[in-house]
Amino acid sequence: MNGRSLHAHHDGSELYVPAGTPALGDSVPVRVRVPSGSAVQAVHLRTVRDGEPEVTAARLDREDERERWFVAEVEVHNPTTGYRFLLDEPGGYRWLNGTGLHARDVPDAADFRLTVHAGAPAWTRDAVVYQVFPDRFARSGTERALPDWAVPAAWGDEPFAGGPAVGQQLYGGDLPGIEQHLDHLERLGVDVLYLTPFFPGRSNHRYDASTFDHVDPLLGGDEALASLARAVHARGLRLLGDLTTNHTGAGHEWFRRAQADRTSEEASFYLWTEDGYVSWLGHASLPKLDHAAPALGPRLVDGPDSVIGRWLREPFALDGWRIDVANMTGRYRDQDFTHDVARRIRRTMTQVRPDALLVSEHFHDASGDLPGDGWHANMNYNGFSRPVWGWTAPAGTTRRSLGLPVPQARRLGAATVATMREFAAAVPWAVTAAQWNMLGSHDTARIRTLVGSRDMLEVAVGLLMTYPGTPMIFAGDEVGATGTTGEHARVTMPWDRPQDWDDATFALYRDLVAVRRGSRALRHGGLRWWFAEDDVVAYLRETTDERVLVVAARAPWPGAVLPDALAGAGVPEVLHGPDPVRTTDGAVAVPGHGPAVAVWRLA
Amino acid sequence: MNGRSLHAHHDGSELYVPAGTPALGDSVPVRVRVPSGSAVQAVHLRTVRDGEPEVTAARLDREDERERWFVAEVEVHNPTTGYRFLLDEPGGYRWLNGTGLHARDVPDAADFRLTVHAGAPAWTRDAVVYQVFPDRFARSGTERALPDWAVPAAWGDEPFAGGPAVGQQLYGGDLPGIEQHLDHLERLGVDVLYLTPFFPGRSNHRYDASTFDHVDPLLGGDEALASLARAVHARGLRLLGDLTTNHTGAGHEWFRRAQADRTSEEASFYLWTEDGYVSWLGHASLPKLDHAAPALGPRLVDGPDSVIGRWLREPFALDGWRIDVANMTGRYRDQDFTHDVARRIRRTMTQVRPDALLVSEHFHDASGDLPGDGWHANMNYNGFSRPVWGWTAPAGTTRRSLGLPVPQARRLGAATVATMREFAAAVPWAVTAAQWNMLGSHDTARIRTLVGSRDMLEVAVGLLMTYPGTPMIFAGDEVGATGTTGEHARVTMPWDRPQDWDDATFALYRDLVAVRRGSRALRHGGLRWWFAEDDVVAYLRETTDERVLVVAARAPWPGAVLPDALAGAGVPEVLHGPDPVRTTDGAVAVPGHGPAVAVWRLA
Repeated sequence: MNGRSLHAHHDGSELYVPAGTPALGDSVPVRVRVPSGSAVQAVHLRTVRDGEPEVTAARLDREDERERWFVAEVEVHNPTTGYRFLLDEPGGYRWLNGTGLHARDVPDAADFRLTVHAGAPAWTRDAVVYQVFPDRFARSGTERALPDWAVPAAWGDEPFAGGPAVGQQLYGGDLPGIEQHLDHLERLGVDVLYLTPFFPGRSNHRYDASTFDHVDPLLGGDEALASLARAVHARGLRLLGDLTTNHTGAGHEWFRRAQADRTSEEASFYLWTEDGYVSWLGHASLPKLDHAAPALGPRLVDGPDSVIGRWLREPFALDGWRIDVANMTGRYRDQDFTHDVARRIRRTMTQVRPDALLVSEHFHDASGDLPGDGWHANMNYNGFSRPVWGWTAPAGTTRRSLGLPVPQARRLGAATVATMREFAAAVPWAVTAAQWNMLGSHDTARIRTLVGSRDMLEVAVGLLMTYPGTPMIFAGDEVGATGTTGEHARVTMPWDRPQDWDDATFALYRDLVAVRRGSRALRHGGLRWWFAEDDVVAYLRETTDERVLVVAARAPWPGAVLPDALAGAGVPEVLHGPDPVRTTDGAVAVPGHGPAVAVWRLA
Repeated sequence: MNGRSLHAHHDGSELYVPAGTPALGDSVPVRVRVPSGSAVQAVHLRTVRDGEPEVTAARLDREDERERWFVAEVEVHNPTTGYRFLLDEPGGYRWLNGTGLHARDVPDAADFRLTVHAGAPAWTRDAVVYQVFPDRFARSGTERALPDWAVPAAWGDEPFAGGPAVGQQLYGGDLPGIEQHLDHLERLGVDVLYLTPFFPGRSNHRYDASTFDHVDPLLGGDEALASLARAVHARGLRLLGDLTTNHTGAGHEWFRRAQADRTSEEASFYLWTEDGYVSWLGHASLPKLDHAAPALGPRLVDGPDSVIGRWLREPFALDGWRIDVANMTGRYRDQDFTHDVARRIRRTMTQVRPDALLVSEHFHDASGDLPGDGWHANMNYNGFSRPVWGWTAPAGTTRRSLGLPVPQARRLGAATVATMREFAAAVPWAVTAAQWNMLGSHDTARIRTLVGSRDMLEVAVGLLMTYPGTPMIFAGDEVGATGTTGEHARVTMPWDRPQDWDDATFALYRDLVAVRRGSRALRHGGLRWWFAEDDVVAYLRETTDERVLVVAARAPWPGAVLPDALAGAGVPEVLHGPDPVRTTDGAVAVPGHGPAVAVWRLA
């Protein structure tokens, strides 16, 4: 077993930066740790102030046989103040930024950041989100008339994987059905229920809202949501909604009015062309909203009576919003109001319900949209899901890579970690700590189908529950749901199909959720990478009072001896996975099992 | 000698993207080359449209025994439209972006870009800039009274390297002195004369202007500049000025009026604090301008009668501006008008003199300030100077790294190239092609002093004259000037000191300037890296009609055989440096000389 070394490290977590949001002009002490035995002669802090770097010496704060800690002051002179560390070494200085150590000069893009913008509400740091697609979770049994657009499905039917009717296949799940199964959420250990849209539309997904004023009667209507909200809140859980700010349905009351009267206020809400109107990716059923329209703001996003504000109030009291197609919201040709819309939504939320959460859907590189003053966080496909898929998918899979015309590529550990670090480094730590990490959603294949085995699923779920950010579980993943495409994966919960209910997978999820909930380091800790090799990645989650080591292996490997700095005073406590082994000379080692994930609390 | 392989490549140059600036909505064919024998099965184009990626298949455009060319259409749907290529390969797809090939998912930051913003004026593509610090270039002999602030120096005195009087040491160079020596510029082969400020101040550098309305009488006054401009233009050369938009001198007429009358319009031009006023890096002599002041725009930057506009007109007819401290201009705490000011300056220039050039001073990571609609280009310290310094400086140098409290680090070739590629990839190609590359300026040590030998200077100048962008030579470098700090390096031209005039260095500069001027590929070509090793870096500059290979070695090395794709039909033409050698099997090879730079036109 080879030893692996630890490196100088800093991130935005409590070990390195005081908790809380600084005000403009505040001076914030930031700390960096340097392993003993490194050649570092001195540490300097580089901040950028009004566009100009300023380099100051860090001072030695404390030292023991394992490491030296240096501290320096960052003046938050600008609303977002970037900084990184210069390590003065005999072989030439190196930079330490959000992607690690660099023996060359680097751009500022991966600098650490302090911002004056509050991060996501505090409760989100401890949250595990459970995503429910209302049509597929549970039926209450109330009989409702089938709408004209619907293709009825029996609860046990396999969803269509594609084709024109994927949006019409209606299973009849409803909000009272969800309310009847809240015990399941508590058993699993999740504490936030996120519902995809509950507005009426002409589809099973309801992203084509016909109004933002009412809950779809097919789901039970406004009273069903109010009831669900009461039940959720009574259990100490939270409830999130899902809103399309990029578009409405073509059947939306605003759009109908707009089409009927091109001089109406609502006509200004849409983007008209010579041929008709602009729509989401050319789908005529989803006309795109024009956020340049002055009258749209008060209706949709600004103030307590806007759509954003109204549903945060009683009797629904949503605990936040997930914003659909946030990446395109307000963007069209030479207009780009995305940041403006995000900031205005945040302002409304702060006004109506200061502890509400605002999460964007942006499948791609969202870093430019996450400076910290708009969306609190993003659905972290690029910074988490894709790299984990690439590392856990079997070699030679023919599954398509999401959004690409090629198969999912199998990536090596170092490449996987490089991608995770690069995306994380592009946003403030407060955002990283609140990103929604997922193994899948209603828009992807099921993780169980992608990875192909429960063993590998365990590795993926192990990463999900130990990585910084908020884990999100798409309902059904925890009982072994399968599906090859986003639509095909929108399977119903098998309440009535014991043969489709994988108890071992449920136990795995429940165990790993509990591990997370039982460890402050896993929820609040920093992220220090230990090593990344082809088949094994290892990192530490650390708070002032706890250190947890995570070693994920996708295949058998030789194992690794803990360095002195991690071996500490005793044998690690196993939170999940294999037990430590002793080498012949008495050292503690991670055994070379794989696929496996070891989650150990270090002594 | 080892072979090195060529990789798939694209950049914004004429081989890959049609010349000219697209309009919004235009469709632009972009091409990518893939070496034969690579495993690439198909190529796809990924663009981002209103924040959402779109992936389309590229089609095979042409093919020979050496490579395949694919083509795809980018719709310039947004003012800046990013794109990159997906190479479908059996081992998993790879991305090709501005930093090269990646076997993992990558952020969008290094995507190629098309923009609707015009690049730098066409003449700049062929330009070589010569920077003159007026106090130190030449004295006309006109006797002028010494100002009260000045510490007089004899022409041959060594400049102070630091201390309080560095700004006061006055040598008495003037504009008529420059005019008398224009032959020198033509002998050297440069065609753009860039003057650091000619406004009056209370320093030898004149970055503390007391007015923007007149030329310093110590330099000869307005008539001397008009005369110099006529003489420069009569020779077909161009003339650039230097303006501080971040600050004025404390003795500036605006600031005096502001201090005398805090209700004056001029008082709104500055940033007042409880203790006084905001100044550049705390230097009270340089009060910072407040670009939020509505009245400042028309005076300084907006329209033909602004400072920006006025000097572009007759009788001075400046061919453009270099903007001092552009990185801080308009930035202060929570205000950031930098882009706004840059765009307004550009607008004025387009109005008054559409072929004028606008270059920013930004020593650091300027990529966020170079989207293409403000500064045409930047003084490229980070993307060129620093990496070249790090690669050509001797091991163990005690010279300070510019702006850092540590010695200049010696970097390996791969690290050097990684930094160059990373900075270049962060801006549109039109910016890369216009960046001001330098080996030094009035703010740095002399390159001759840093590298320590004429052999290594040749390597550095070889890179300067063959890299994409506009080479800038700080007057004196070409005759072997030395100096350990920015101030110490502001030595006078040794017109009267033959012992300080290094003829061999002048011949080297003149030769390499001529090589550049004689090769369209070196001026207009793309940049394709061949390899980067510890002591050797190699790249191609290519147009539709010419291919030039540059191989720079900082030390002896084993040499390299040209691959078939570069060996072409015959023996390369040596534009500079060592002759090709033949291996025993008849292949053409670059000999392993070093320090040396080979510049070969390939057959």
